[in-house]
Amino acid sequence: MDLLQSRIVWEGKWRLRVDSFRLPDGRLYERGRIEHPGAVVLVPVVPGEAGPAVLMLRQYRVALDQTILELPAGTREPDEPWLVCAQRELREETGQRAETLTPLGEVWAAPGLSNERMALFLAEGLSDDPLPMDMDEEIAVEPWPLAELATMALDGRLDDAKSVAGILRAAHHLGL
Amino acid sequence: MDLLQSRIVWEGKWRLRVDSFRLPDGRLYERGRIEHPGAVVLVPVVPGEAGPAVLMLRQYRVALDQTILELPAGTREPDEPWLVCAQRELREETGQRAETLTPLGEVWAAPGLSNERMALFLAEGLSDDPLPMDMDEEIAVEPWPLAELATMALDGRLDDAKSVAGILRAAHHLGL
Repeated sequence: MDLLQSRIVWEGKWRLRVDSFRLPDGRLYERGRIEHPGAVVLVPVVPGEAGPAVLMLRQYRVALDQTILELPAGTREPDEPWLVCAQRELREETGQRAETLTPLGEVWAAPGLSNERMALFLAEGLSDDPLPMDMDEEIAVEPWPLAELATMALDGRLDDAKSVAGILRAAHHLGL
Repeated sequence: MDLLQSRIVWEGKWRLRVDSFRLPDGRLYERGRIEHPGAVVLVPVVPGEAGPAVLMLRQYRVALDQTILELPAGTREPDEPWLVCAQRELREETGQRAETLTPLGEVWAAPGLSNERMALFLAEGLSDDPLPMDMDEEIAVEPWPLAELATMALDGRLDDAKSVAGILRAAHHLGL
């Protein structure tokens, strides 16, 4: 396939690049891919009577037109250091600051169409320190037992890919 | 925020919709979201001497400009039944047909920007039955021990979100 053109079709928090090709049989073919600055995913853990609990979000997602249960997460600003981004998103979405942020590895969100890299962090030692939310966010914070979330990640009741990865890595890290 | 316009900016295997808003202070604001037909993710398991092995892919991803280790997966055709899609993608990417496909739940791939729903399946009872690959795929099939993949999913060496979810759900389902 010969690449004829590569152009940015739209740009916002991320951008869409479209590559155009000439196929061997002469037809034209377009392939889109998202250029994304990356994102952080937080697993904010608080001690609980029956083991650690996680501050989950019940969040309305415009792209889905529904409300889902997921870990706090957010898009990195261009050139923003990952740990700075992690602390900022945690404060915006849960109103908490973390004393320690422990890396839980990274994941590609959707490598078939996007270069979005997600960096996962265990957030511990939380204390009140809120920042204003993004204007288009509708969020409620819900503490859930980590052990129950791990079961839900495995049986399918937790159905957000980054949250499945974050919860199971956190449970493993904490020896659950 | 008042919605001024909602338009399709590009369409290929999936499409980009952009909503335009007028903010309370008068400024314009655009938000992009991907409308996606959904995808399947396969965990193709074969018996091995040291426990079950999984047919993983070593695949070049244009969006990342790199080769990653991941589970076989693929985009659903519009209106294609999920099980038909699962069998087709398995045959295209691994050359194998499955006697049984067991649902392992679903996950949202990237709900902040896309409505892509991924349906995960355990594929067992494999036999040779290849289909031609998509023209733009560069794939090598590699069998890996499931127990090792589960460890890699937890410690971060496996770094593709759908694959982390699929491997850990399959290991749980098979009692590993």
